[in-house]
Amino acid sequence: MNKRLILVTNDDGVASRGMEAAIEVARTYGRTVVVAPETMQSGMSQAITMYNPLFLRQVRKEEGLEMYSFSGTPVDCVKMAFDYLLRDEKVDLVISGINHGSNSAVNVLYSGTMGAAIEGSFYGCPSVGLSLDDHSAEADFEASIEWGKRIIGDVLARNERLPLCLNVNVPVGRPEEIRGMRLCRQNRGFWREEFFRHEDPRGREYFWLTGAFVNSEPEAEDTDEWALSHGYVSVVPVQVDMTDYEQLKHMKNVLHE
Amino acid sequence: MNKRLILVTNDDGVASRGMEAAIEVARTYGRTVVVAPETMQSGMSQAITMYNPLFLRQVRKEEGLEMYSFSGTPVDCVKMAFDYLLRDEKVDLVISGINHGSNSAVNVLYSGTMGAAIEGSFYGCPSVGLSLDDHSAEADFEASIEWGKRIIGDVLARNERLPLCLNVNVPVGRPEEIRGMRLCRQNRGFWREEFFRHEDPRGREYFWLTGAFVNSEPEAEDTDEWALSHGYVSVVPVQVDMTDYEQLKHMKNVLHE
Repeated sequence: MNKRLILVTNDDGVASRGMEAAIEVARTYGRTVVVAPETMQSGMSQAITMYNPLFLRQVRKEEGLEMYSFSGTPVDCVKMAFDYLLRDEKVDLVISGINHGSNSAVNVLYSGTMGAAIEGSFYGCPSVGLSLDDHSAEADFEASIEWGKRIIGDVLARNERLPLCLNVNVPVGRPEEIRGMRLCRQNRGFWREEFFRHEDPRGREYFWLTGAFVNSEPEAEDTDEWALSHGYVSVVPVQVDMTDYEQLKHMKNVLHE
Repeated sequence: MNKRLILVTNDDGVASRGMEAAIEVARTYGRTVVVAPETMQSGMSQAITMYNPLFLRQVRKEEGLEMYSFSGTPVDCVKMAFDYLLRDEKVDLVISGINHGSNSAVNVLYSGTMGAAIEGSFYGCPSVGLSLDDHSAEADFEASIEWGKRIIGDVLARNERLPLCLNVNVPVGRPEEIRGMRLCRQNRGFWREEFFRHEDPRGREYFWLTGAFVNSEPEAEDTDEWALSHGYVSVVPVQVDMTDYEQLKHMKNVLHE
């Protein structure tokens, strides 16, 4: 019997379809504990809840699976699991997802899915963020389940003890349409917003974020954005040292110490 | 007359004391436009508001200063400024802060202050996150104002056109007690949470995050955490490529393509 312990979370909320897909991936490899946000937490990044109490609720329990909803952010869920619920156990892997919508390029920074995966790696645990490049309610998760199982099997099989965080994005398509997998670096690109502007029923002006991604290096074949838009599963290993070492060298000429 | 345009935001909210301190820094260098969260947004990281309408309100207008409160996150505020309010102007600098509490080490990832500064750099604008290592309501901002002015003066004076994002943290103390400034890398360390657990008036169990920072390299003198705890202002240049290039080299041995 497989004794591994897999923690699953996401940012679309405990009741999302992508959560069921992630559970299917996780249960292939071990006992599964889900701690996921009660409500939709897309775009919540690495946010934590500092100034509000949080509520935990068990929503399902069966052989090999326990599910909890938590009223905080994706990162709060990971902290709740490691520092409270599972504090006396060894978690072998964190799966965050499967997200409705891709988290390639700079989205790694905005994404609650990747926020949770990164948080898992802070606990020294291999962590995989899984996202499907399809926002629709009828998204077909089959290819992402298949590739998720394959990549996670490889991660669990390796012998190294290095913490590892992977940002995995799967293109839209049936499993047989996926061209393969590519190891990538994070694409450089950014979002520009068009604020949707309207008036509410009481005449108050409101704004709604609605952006467009600008790929500043569409020709670069080693990026996740390229892989995804060419039909490949993209895999980017993620680390959290945000120091700009290149600038650091030059800063002595800029700042007066 | 100084024609520079400075955008100011923060995560403690438009009415915080640190905002007044940031305005004092900004006005030294140019016309100042504030777009800051209506409410406290500490720990909001790079979060964006995708599924709610946002409201903008002008709260102050005088010679050289316009202030707006916005009902979103710190990053939403920066987007509102660049993509709507100031879309026809050239912003010369973003100041985010002055935060009540330090944002050294991995806090760069959780911090709404740094989320906003990073967002500013996505618009190709030099951006400085300023934080004071003091959470108290009576915090003395004088040293952080003085060092903020000095560092920002240097940033504005440089000729390079490289985008630049700085994470500046100022220790507690009177200006004359600060030992100087150090250019640093981001400290490796992480938070471990102790969930404060209690019952609400109706007997529902609730949890409250209350963590402790674990400095995994207290002896490393080149980190921001070391500088700050030894009485120095820490300055870390920040970039957003989170690719783990070291792991990328080894991933071919882990994953089966």
